[in-house]
Amino acid sequence: MAGVPVPLERVINELVKLPGIGEKTATRLAFHLTRADRNDVEGLANSLLSMREELYTCSVCCALAGADPCELCCDPRRSDEIVCVVEEAADLAAVERSGGFQGRYHVLQGTLSPLDGIGPDDLRITELVRRLGSGTVRELIIATNPTAEGEATALYVANLTKPLGVTVSRIAHGLPMGGDVEYADLATLGKALEGRREM
Amino acid sequence: MAGVPVPLERVINELVKLPGIGEKTATRLAFHLTRADRNDVEGLANSLLSMREELYTCSVCCALAGADPCELCCDPRRSDEIVCVVEEAADLAAVERSGGFQGRYHVLQGTLSPLDGIGPDDLRITELVRRLGSGTVRELIIATNPTAEGEATALYVANLTKPLGVTVSRIAHGLPMGGDVEYADLATLGKALEGRREM
Repeated sequence: MAGVPVPLERVINELVKLPGIGEKTATRLAFHLTRADRNDVEGLANSLLSMREELYTCSVCCALAGADPCELCCDPRRSDEIVCVVEEAADLAAVERSGGFQGRYHVLQGTLSPLDGIGPDDLRITELVRRLGSGTVRELIIATNPTAEGEATALYVANLTKPLGVTVSRIAHGLPMGGDVEYADLATLGKALEGRREM
Repeated sequence: MAGVPVPLERVINELVKLPGIGEKTATRLAFHLTRADRNDVEGLANSLLSMREELYTCSVCCALAGADPCELCCDPRRSDEIVCVVEEAADLAAVERSGGFQGRYHVLQGTLSPLDGIGPDDLRITELVRRLGSGTVRELIIATNPTAEGEATALYVANLTKPLGVTVSRIAHGLPMGGDVEYADLATLGKALEGRREM
């Protein structure tokens, strides 16, 4: 790259591989790192190197975790009776941040996507069915994304688990808080009407 | 952080220190890195670690460089007679990308900023004056930013170097290409009128 020394160019080339980071942002970040505290740069590099070594997949909920079983599966204050099913570890973190859930989780690690060749065996569905076998789980909340793949996965999981005697629910779809009826897309508004609740 | 394992949280905490990266972006990037190719993650970490070791300040132009003197100062195709003075190494890279300059550079490594206690001795001005001493440089283009500090620095450098017998010029200020006269700010429009050229 013109006017950029090679060691810096190497950092830029690595940064642009990240999602949402273009060449301009990568260049800005790289130049910032040349001026930043040496400890900060080493801290970032070392946290990246150790992350992959120290992350496990929890054998109970299949989430990314610092230990196996994970902190959430071990927490005695959480209810064993209700399990929230999400697509990815990032979704688990989002639900957890909302503070509205005190049960356990199950991470599918993806969605059904026949076009990409991803079938039920590629997801952690067998592990979910095995968890339900013990009989302690009474409700399953399916919190996959409201996309075609997420809906298909939700339906598949619901059909598979309902016969096992658990209540299966789906998170509500509708207008986001602070949203605007006028500007809502048709699908969202349709779902909001369909899912109306008596007040 | 709720629902985020400690090794991942460590990465997020390091990423949010970067400019323009908030907690949400940092979390998204960190989760991406858990799924990314292990080589990419190690490549990023190692490029960060080696960058600081392999970057020098060029003893001629004071730019960040992979060697001393830097590639640009050693390039025999560039003219020694004209020197472009910039604030930071990132500015040098920007001018170089424009492809419109074939001379040498000088990086001041900052601007005069009395409020922050930055005076002429904190910048690489002595090095610039020393370069002019050899008599080969005939023109100086001052490409500091069009900010209060950048303008003050430009004026200071011009007053100091003109008596040494070099032509000193300032890059043009005016409407950016693709800009809009209607929406241009007053200062920019004023500078554009002032700097008009016969056509």
